[in-house]
Amino acid sequence: MEKQELLYEGKAKKIYATDQENILWLEYKDDATAFNGEKKSSIAGKKVLNNEISSLLFEVLHKENVPTHFVERLSNYEQLVKKVSIIPLEVVVRNVIAGSLAKRLGVEEGTKTEQPIVELYYKDDALGDPLITDEHALFLKAASWDELAYIKFLARRVNEILLPYFLERDIKLVDFKLEFGKTEDGTIILADEVSPDTCRFWDIHTNEKLDKDVFRRDLGGLTDAYEEILKRIGGKSHV
Amino acid sequence: MEKQELLYEGKAKKIYATDQENILWLEYKDDATAFNGEKKSSIAGKKVLNNEISSLLFEVLHKENVPTHFVERLSNYEQLVKKVSIIPLEVVVRNVIAGSLAKRLGVEEGTKTEQPIVELYYKDDALGDPLITDEHALFLKAASWDELAYIKFLARRVNEILLPYFLERDIKLVDFKLEFGKTEDGTIILADEVSPDTCRFWDIHTNEKLDKDVFRRDLGGLTDAYEEILKRIGGKSHV
Repeated sequence: MEKQELLYEGKAKKIYATDQENILWLEYKDDATAFNGEKKSSIAGKKVLNNEISSLLFEVLHKENVPTHFVERLSNYEQLVKKVSIIPLEVVVRNVIAGSLAKRLGVEEGTKTEQPIVELYYKDDALGDPLITDEHALFLKAASWDELAYIKFLARRVNEILLPYFLERDIKLVDFKLEFGKTEDGTIILADEVSPDTCRFWDIHTNEKLDKDVFRRDLGGLTDAYEEILKRIGGKSHV
Repeated sequence: MEKQELLYEGKAKKIYATDQENILWLEYKDDATAFNGEKKSSIAGKKVLNNEISSLLFEVLHKENVPTHFVERLSNYEQLVKKVSIIPLEVVVRNVIAGSLAKRLGVEEGTKTEQPIVELYYKDDALGDPLITDEHALFLKAASWDELAYIKFLARRVNEILLPYFLERDIKLVDFKLEFGKTEDGTIILADEVSPDTCRFWDIHTNEKLDKDVFRRDLGGLTDAYEEILKRIGGKSHV
């Protein structure tokens, strides 16, 4: 496989073409951003940890037949993924109220939900990735009804797999953000990443935050938190 | 019917008990507020216009079998209504994108929707009445699934009645906000008001705003706009 031209550079990843038409070369970055890019930093080791954790979690999901873009881990900070066009929705699943939703609803952070709550946010940096409803997503032609139903089904399925998976490892999966993409034949698969950048992980005993909130809220060393997640899911640190 | 103690004073209305258990005495106020109370004024004649317009529109909805709290118009600025406990949701129906939704979605004001969009906002001044999803409304126990379905059905029904009603009067019904309440026996009925305070009305030919946006955006005389609406729906001004 040959790495070719840069196709896209996001806040946390770069994506390159390869000599294979439907395969992309994904490179994680050490950059950390929060609050729609207002807070920025570079944290040595983050790219390696996210690549490791995301690769491991995509493998967990693969075993449970969740279709994902993950093909293989290439190096400490690189992986191959299937080419998709990203659906412009951030799909958030919440088991515990935290972050922006705690503020929106005036509910104390840490309040449990009776049912997981699935939300859509419109992927648009200029608009600050606003919360939207299903009807807004249709209006924006971000997805069709059937596609929305399938995306939400997959998001709930990922939660059903990862919630007990992390619980066994003494981690509360508070919430997480997924992105989906469409392959050339129209199949919808899970894309982006599943990592402490995109999930809230709390230690089951102490509620210690083991995710990007450590960076957002200046709670200490981000790589220590991410290394702890990697250790608990059986990964080997290459930082 | 005897007016008794003040039960509630809101931004635009006062509600009093009466000597009849299930009937309340509603008094409109001349106060105008916008932006969650940040902009305030008192506009002589507004209470009379809103009482007239809302009474007329509730009668239009009654004829089409929409259950509402309206009992009768008592005076220039007073009406009798059925007693309900208000469901803490603002239900917004949009035929044309305007106001906060234009900003949220980054869409030009005036863009038509293919289907009317129905949205829920959580009635909470301290939180700024945030947009919420159905799942949030359930989490907040604002309403059950069945109640949400019925509320949305009624909201769409009101739109099906009022959209052509206003079109015949050369008015574009851009969007409107409804509130629903529960009577003691659990029946859900339309409550609050239907007026230029709660609807966006644009002249069909000129797009001139004939609603509270005149106040929000300092576009001229609010009572002139409201009088124009009253005139077009066949009401008699008592201002």
